Amino acid sequence: MNFPGQHIISIDQFDRDAVTRVFDVADQMIPYARRQRITRVLEGAILGNMFFEPSTRTRVSFGSAFNLLGGQVRETVGMDSSSLSKGESLHDTAKVLSGYSDIIVMRHPQAGSVAEFAAASRVPVLNGGDGANEHPTQALLDLYTIRSELAGKGRELAGLRIAMVGDLKHGRTVHSLCRLLQLYKNVKLTLIAPDALQMPERLLENAREAGLSVHTTSAMDEGLREVDIVYQTRLQEERFADPEEARRYRGAFRINQSLYNRLCHPDTVLLHPLPRDSRADANELDNDLNDNPNLAIFRQADNGVLVRMALFALVLDIEKDINKHARDLHWYTPQR
Amino acid sequence: MNFPGQHIISIDQFDRDAVTRVFDVADQMIPYARRQRITRVLEGAILGNMFFEPSTRTRVSFGSAFNLLGGQVRETVGMDSSSLSKGESLHDTAKVLSGYSDIIVMRHPQAGSVAEFAAASRVPVLNGGDGANEHPTQALLDLYTIRSELAGKGRELAGLRIAMVGDLKHGRTVHSLCRLLQLYKNVKLTLIAPDALQMPERLLENAREAGLSVHTTSAMDEGLREVDIVYQTRLQEERFADPEEARRYRGAFRINQSLYNRLCHPDTVLLHPLPRDSRADANELDNDLNDNPNLAIFRQADNGVLVRMALFALVLDIEKDINKHARDLHWYTPQR
Amino acid sequence: MNFPGQHIISIDQFDRDAVTRVFDVADQMIPYARRQRITRVLEGAILGNMFFEPSTRTRVSFGSAFNLLGGQVRETVGMDSSSLSKGESLHDTAKVLSGYSDIIVMRHPQAGSVAEFAAASRVPVLNGGDGANEHPTQALLDLYTIRSELAGKGRELAGLRIAMVGDLKHGRTVHSLCRLLQLYKNVKLTLIAPDALQMPERLLENAREAGLSVHTTSAMDEGLREVDIVYQTRLQEERFADPEEARRYRGAFRINQSLYNRLCHPDTVLLHPLPRDSRADANELDNDLNDNPNLAIFRQADNGVLVRMALFALVLDIEKDINKHARDLHWYTPQR
Repeated sequence: MNFPGQHIISIDQFDRDAVTRVFDVADQMIPYARRQRITRVLEGAILGNMFFEPSTRTRVSFGSAFNLLGGQVRETVGMDSSSLSKGESLHDTAKVLSGYSDIIVMRHPQAGSVAEFAAASRVPVLNGGDGANEHPTQALLDLYTIRSELAGKGRELAGLRIAMVGDLKHGRTVHSLCRLLQLYKNVKLTLIAPDALQMPERLLENAREAGLSVHTTSAMDEGLREVDIVYQTRLQEERFADPEEARRYRGAFRINQSLYNRLCHPDTVLLHPLPRDSRADANELDNDLNDNPNLAIFRQADNGVLVRMALFALVLDIEKDINKHARDLHWYTPQR
Repeated sequence: MNFPGQHIISIDQFDRDAVTRVFDVADQMIPYARRQRITRVLEGAILGNMFFEPSTRTRVSFGSAFNLLGGQVRETVGMDSSSLSKGESLHDTAKVLSGYSDIIVMRHPQAGSVAEFAAASRVPVLNGGDGANEHPTQALLDLYTIRSELAGKGRELAGLRIAMVGDLKHGRTVHSLCRLLQLYKNVKLTLIAPDALQMPERLLENAREAGLSVHTTSAMDEGLREVDIVYQTRLQEERFADPEEARRYRGAFRINQSLYNRLCHPDTVLLHPLPRDSRADANELDNDLNDNPNLAIFRQADNGVLVRMALFALVLDIEKDINKHARDLHWYTPQR
Repeated sequence: MNFPGQHIISIDQFDRDAVTRVFDVADQMIPYARRQRITRVLEGAILGNMFFEPSTRTRVSFGSAFNLLGGQVRETVGMDSSSLSKGESLHDTAKVLSGYSDIIVMRHPQAGSVAEFAAASRVPVLNGGDGANEHPTQALLDLYTIRSELAGKGRELAGLRIAMVGDLKHGRTVHSLCRLLQLYKNVKLTLIAPDALQMPERLLENAREAGLSVHTTSAMDEGLREVDIVYQTRLQEERFADPEEARRYRGAFRINQSLYNRLCHPDTVLLHPLPRDSRADANELDNDLNDNPNLAIFRQADNGVLVRMALFALVLDIEKDINKHARDLHWYTPQR
């Protein structure tokens, strides 16, 4: 992929070289995200952070990533009821808003909307999530986290053994991650879900055709042994036709420290796209795991900033200039 | 008009010299808005972008204009339900908020509210739209666009022939534009609307007294011939007492490419204050016009940034310093 | 108190030296807030301005204070319905959001929430108000204003005579201010309220034990004589179990210019935490006081910016570097 000026709409745009490029640039962002230095490289640049569907964490993550590169952020949150009720097309919204910024992040509840918007935009557009369809930066940050966590244990993505757990039917993030994993060799994928929530057959076939070793099961006991990564998910209750049916699965796939001790290799890393449901009847990842050094869910959220910085840098073609515009910083920063 | 420190509340504040001054400064903003350079001239300045009535495009346009000059933006969107329900007066809101910024843009649903707010404000206030009353930057950007489009064809504002089309009774933008046109000589104005939606008599009289040649008609066939500019408008459905009546006029003034070919001189420029209603039954300006180089509606939106930058620069008295604080930029920018 | 890296959650964290330190630093902020200079000291720093309960004035005040120090602001307004409905704990919200910024201001409707959030945050957290519990920067800016107003008359906090008026039962601000006053000697406190709205007994006892001379009364005539400061409050109607009861007290404690002339020493300063209720039936501080030079309510609001700048500077440990990073500014600023 040739990044400068590119729209980032789908994970399907990424081959292995492109993913490696994003991750290498993300690595270079660490001193800036950890507040060892600042950079002015995007001084004067404007991000249009257009969240037509609210999402505090994703919105702030993108906005902070742009600020960390020295740029400014203009934002919107929620549907523009005025323009919508006045019948404006996505084409027109894109034409207008793309005159106000250098790059746009767009989140929108409707599948396909970001691609339609991007087609009319005069500046690069990054997909911040378009309904049930795609959320490519989430998939990239997930894979980046897996890579980082494995690296800390002297391993790499080739040969990865990963278990995905929970609502694999509706989970946009596990679908995208599954596609990204097909870029690597000897990946062993275990999918733990009740039959009714198992990953769609089409995706399973794709994964097998691409050379992944795929194993499906509904038994935690079987699936969680001998894996490097457990990717826990949230029950996507809002995607069920029948809320009663969703409720039946609440709490069915809890992981807590004693289960971890019993089933998991002590190096097994726990991931989750967040938010995790911490209510007693859901409890996807128990709070008693909070002191487990392999609970990597907050490092995963932090990595979102690195990956988004990297995409901004690559699409705006300034990844080589970041250090040149670096400055020291003087304020209190917490020890890490 | 002496700009520094001035509130910009109404189009009536502008004589011809003042308009010319705004447009000259807007022209100087082009290299910054087109991302050939950045400027730090307003580094450290704060805009209070107070949109008590939501309007994504106008809000982001003002905010981006301030960022492009190097300033920071603090914002609010929607009514401050808390202060309102606690009985705070506009006077007090103005006293407090004007302590937080160097300049304020205010949009508010109530006619006259911005003037009342400005009277108590300790910093300059720009009217971003006060209900059915005024939206002076829209009128200025409309006229600036007309001037620019004419200039591209070797013509100027004196001698302009313009047709305004649609709901001319309720359209705030055509009322204001009509007043601004009175500053120029030999303007020929054709007003195309059904009798019930024709421009208010008082405004017609004013225009005639000021020397405009004014012609009213309800026939597109007659009105669209031999004009330089067609200013299409949106049916202001929300301003009708009876929604049924509004519906009767939906789609009555559509313009598409074949109508354009049949009636308009091939140099005729099409404008619209946006959003345009692209639903099939409204279709004010058909999408088949999107490739018509004389469809200037998105250049018009872009020009909003230039005009708002110019007003900020004039009111804050830094229009002579912009280039002095200029810097190169390094990131990817689309070709234009 | 050792400020760098500290969470600021409660007024109880402040001893007299800490208060003096905040006020001294706030004094140093005056040239920046009055736009005589700008500073880049926090260039590249990010404030997470997390207002899970909307409050335009407090949010913009914090945001502007951070901008005035050269930093960037990322914001949220209102409950994150998405994360909440998905069962995320405050612990997780804090872990995630604290990865996006250098310091966080948090407002939340639930008492104790900010402390809970801060316990999990990886960056310093400032309490922007947690329900009926605390709003420490309001108390500090109130006391700072009293100090400033007294200083203008050649007096100091020791020996202060202050009357608090109105709904002293529910008013969070008067409770906190009362606690802060206990750090000073020879303070004479008059509490004017109907018995049912008098300050809670526990707080009265604390104040007396700490050495304050406390006098309660329900008579304005008696209470307003011979005081330096009158601190008027708003009827906290939303905190009454029975709205009917609240309505009974509306307008019971109005102060206007003629009452002021009749009862108050001509040097008496009028304060109010704002918003003041200017509706005819409430009218806590009549608009006929607006030209009274001792109506200090808008200076009080302005001081909020100074105090918040001071807290940011102290917690981020840059208060000594502000002037070193100062620059001149060039734009129009109103005369003061």
